[in-house]
Amino acid sequence: MTAKNAEDPDNAAAGLGKIEGERLVKDRAARGTVYSPVTERVAADLKDILGPSGVTVDSEKCAAYSADETLPWFERDYPAEAVCFPQTTEQVSSLMSYANRNMIPVTPRGAGTGLSGGAVPALGGIVLSMERMNRIIEVDEINRTLTAEPGVITAEITKAAREHGMLYAGDPCSGDISFIGGNVAENAGGNKVIKYGATGAHVLGLEVVLPDGRVTAFGGKRRKDVTGYDFIRLIVGSEGTLAVVTKIILNLLPLPKCVMDLLAPMPDIESAVRLASLVATKSGVMPSSIEFMDRQSILNVEKFTGIEIPFSASAAAYLIIQVDGMEHEQLWRDAHRVGDVCVECGALEVFVGDDRNARDRIWEIRHLVAEEEWTISMPLLSKEDIVIPCGAIPAFMDELPGLAERHRASYNAYGHIGDGNIHMTVFPAEEDGRSDLFARADAMRLDLYHIVRRLGGALSGEHGIGLKRAKYSPIFLGETCVDLIKNIKRAFDPNHILNPGKIIP
Amino acid sequence: MTAKNAEDPDNAAAGLGKIEGERLVKDRAARGTVYSPVTERVAADLKDILGPSGVTVDSEKCAAYSADETLPWFERDYPAEAVCFPQTTEQVSSLMSYANRNMIPVTPRGAGTGLSGGAVPALGGIVLSMERMNRIIEVDEINRTLTAEPGVITAEITKAAREHGMLYAGDPCSGDISFIGGNVAENAGGNKVIKYGATGAHVLGLEVVLPDGRVTAFGGKRRKDVTGYDFIRLIVGSEGTLAVVTKIILNLLPLPKCVMDLLAPMPDIESAVRLASLVATKSGVMPSSIEFMDRQSILNVEKFTGIEIPFSASAAAYLIIQVDGMEHEQLWRDAHRVGDVCVECGALEVFVGDDRNARDRIWEIRHLVAEEEWTISMPLLSKEDIVIPCGAIPAFMDELPGLAERHRASYNAYGHIGDGNIHMTVFPAEEDGRSDLFARADAMRLDLYHIVRRLGGALSGEHGIGLKRAKYSPIFLGETCVDLIKNIKRAFDPNHILNPGKIIP
Repeated sequence: MTAKNAEDPDNAAAGLGKIEGERLVKDRAARGTVYSPVTERVAADLKDILGPSGVTVDSEKCAAYSADETLPWFERDYPAEAVCFPQTTEQVSSLMSYANRNMIPVTPRGAGTGLSGGAVPALGGIVLSMERMNRIIEVDEINRTLTAEPGVITAEITKAAREHGMLYAGDPCSGDISFIGGNVAENAGGNKVIKYGATGAHVLGLEVVLPDGRVTAFGGKRRKDVTGYDFIRLIVGSEGTLAVVTKIILNLLPLPKCVMDLLAPMPDIESAVRLASLVATKSGVMPSSIEFMDRQSILNVEKFTGIEIPFSASAAAYLIIQVDGMEHEQLWRDAHRVGDVCVECGALEVFVGDDRNARDRIWEIRHLVAEEEWTISMPLLSKEDIVIPCGAIPAFMDELPGLAERHRASYNAYGHIGDGNIHMTVFPAEEDGRSDLFARADAMRLDLYHIVRRLGGALSGEHGIGLKRAKYSPIFLGETCVDLIKNIKRAFDPNHILNPGKIIP
Repeated sequence: MTAKNAEDPDNAAAGLGKIEGERLVKDRAARGTVYSPVTERVAADLKDILGPSGVTVDSEKCAAYSADETLPWFERDYPAEAVCFPQTTEQVSSLMSYANRNMIPVTPRGAGTGLSGGAVPALGGIVLSMERMNRIIEVDEINRTLTAEPGVITAEITKAAREHGMLYAGDPCSGDISFIGGNVAENAGGNKVIKYGATGAHVLGLEVVLPDGRVTAFGGKRRKDVTGYDFIRLIVGSEGTLAVVTKIILNLLPLPKCVMDLLAPMPDIESAVRLASLVATKSGVMPSSIEFMDRQSILNVEKFTGIEIPFSASAAAYLIIQVDGMEHEQLWRDAHRVGDVCVECGALEVFVGDDRNARDRIWEIRHLVAEEEWTISMPLLSKEDIVIPCGAIPAFMDELPGLAERHRASYNAYGHIGDGNIHMTVFPAEEDGRSDLFARADAMRLDLYHIVRRLGGALSGEHGIGLKRAKYSPIFLGETCVDLIKNIKRAFDPNHILNPGKIIP
């Protein structure tokens, strides 16, 4: 990855303010915490802990570990001073203990596929790559659990569970490339949260290393446990700011034997939202996915791929509804009941995909929507991850034309409407010059966020706050919650060693 | 409720050490925190905040609010100095702010149906009864949520959801008498956790009052949210030690239209556990309940009720397996598949209840088991709530005869085997005198807990730690977790005003 935007030094990366060559140094100073640099002596000590192949201070290699998928220029602005590759919990423990004593920031990192800059070393120091802790330790059929290290690719977990006839139901859309440790850190969501819950719903146990190097475990192979506070759920989604996860026990479920997908073009947003909101209670079937694409998303796909999508002239929105089950015959009946609700809610047509090929054609549209968004708006992408009560989505969509007009912008919207998680992107119109785009993008975002907040929504449904959204989180959290976050952070990490600079400003 | 054990001053209530008349005063002093008494002046101030009918200092009324269902003599040992009955969040806020400024302990209380002494004012002060904050504020069909105050009886929530064609799936066995606020405080479980999760799995949002009186909200009508730490899950199950919950937003699900129950007498513990562990993956059906009763539990029922239970001579354990669904025909097929797995695992017979009457007969056995346990062992009841990995239950059951012999005791075991939550009770043999029973019960518990811990289990699955188990929690949590609990407590409640003396010693 290279700094694609190097010619544009005045850009404010995703609202993080002016970028400056010495930004990291300034940020550190502004925090009033005295962090130490990674000197040659420190590098030698790290090699003592991790072995010579367990540490690099090479600046090119460090750069490669200093950005995620959020913004490529993070690697220039927030370069790691060292990258460490532990292979055991004991090594992580020794490393954290050393870093804590010596006041060196440590930023844990999964596969670097994050979309919020959560793994970016915002105040420099050490990037702790978990890629060598990549073993699936056990699939336990009797207890219906899978135990893994954090560096396992999520799809490998899904595969291992499937080979034992079970389902790992945490299914972030990035599953083919992301690590389970990253999923846990971000409480990754995906398409199937409405039925199965986000990553956290599947975590039964964690082994963690605390910022001072102490190793402890929360939970275990138990589906009920109220012995003390729920530290598992506190660590899940804490973006690596409270502890380094070194082992994960996951819950597995019976594996559905068949899946069907329905594609329903809808005449207007209201009926699409009504369908998404009521389909479960009206049909009695809890869909495993309810996905949404607005007209602009569909038009973008048609424009850039030449693919014609049925009803694109008349539909204001498309829903994809997935159902899964154990018996093909029963699933057909479920799909029919869901289809009936689609029609009742005004669907212009209901396409049913009941084999791999037909299902792939339906999902291809959804995947292309996400891809085309990148084509159109990189690198000015806002790629929002807002989440809104389903019932407020029509009011939200009504606000968007005004928002776009106020900021001379265009937008598209798609996402996981079943749980109100909308990946919309607002981007300045193409004809505009680039000089003030970032300042304007910031103003647009603030405008957008105040709408979301007024409608009872939140800033991030599944991508996390990280570095990208830290500036904006107080709008949603309020002063008291920000105070509590600071207190909790202090309770775990009094030296602010672990992934500093994230979640809150 | 009266102090049934007043003649027995040397008894150690559930392992809490020697009971003494001035225990509360001593406990306070031992903590090194200077709490203030509820003087006449304080009582007058409380009446200013809550109105004259919102406060009582009458000692009989206070006693009635000083115990829960755990042990009746808590009311003598830990008398409240005042009971307050707020009706609004603002009143709770003013009260907490006042108590915090004046160093008066406050113990929130639901319906008083707890089984761990969680609502007992362990260091005196004010009991905060939530019984007048008892409104169901809203059932929202579009967002599939129900919003309630904490003092609503859980069964009323279930009923309101059902009237709107939806399911509230948090189903503690105490649902007819407990408050939803208490369920949230304890993360109450019940029979249906294996399919639907405990109370916390259904909480989408909370309004809370912090110990210093600040009001804040976590979450909302959103099924995904990673904006900041997961404070909802931290508050759920924190036993009222971190914040007072004043409003709860619950997730609702499609309402299953039919339910069936299977009763399977099993020849030995191993096959019962094997069935409980594998039924979901082998049948492809996730049961809504998998309940377990050992032979002694069944014999107790036969002995005390005269009811004959089939296979009681040959079965070592009984399982009740419940399945629910939308269509009767499909559910029959599901029940058949589950029945096939029962037979495959060695069931001596499979009784299927598919109408209300037959189902009630099956569940009556389970309810009688819990009732007879009280008859036999009150007030020496240990009423454990341990939770063990399913796969370790045979090893656990193998340990019990030895444990019983070592302590001249008998025991029975039953519970929610689907999630490894066993309500076993160890009680000294009837013929023994009572003089040293409590000391012996303590020794038995310690012995038991070390077995549970060795097998990867935990102290409490759904009843909570409270006052009853606080002494034992470090055995399971370890030093580091206890430290973290203290740090988190301090982060929310630096003056230790809110429900002090719970969870850890």
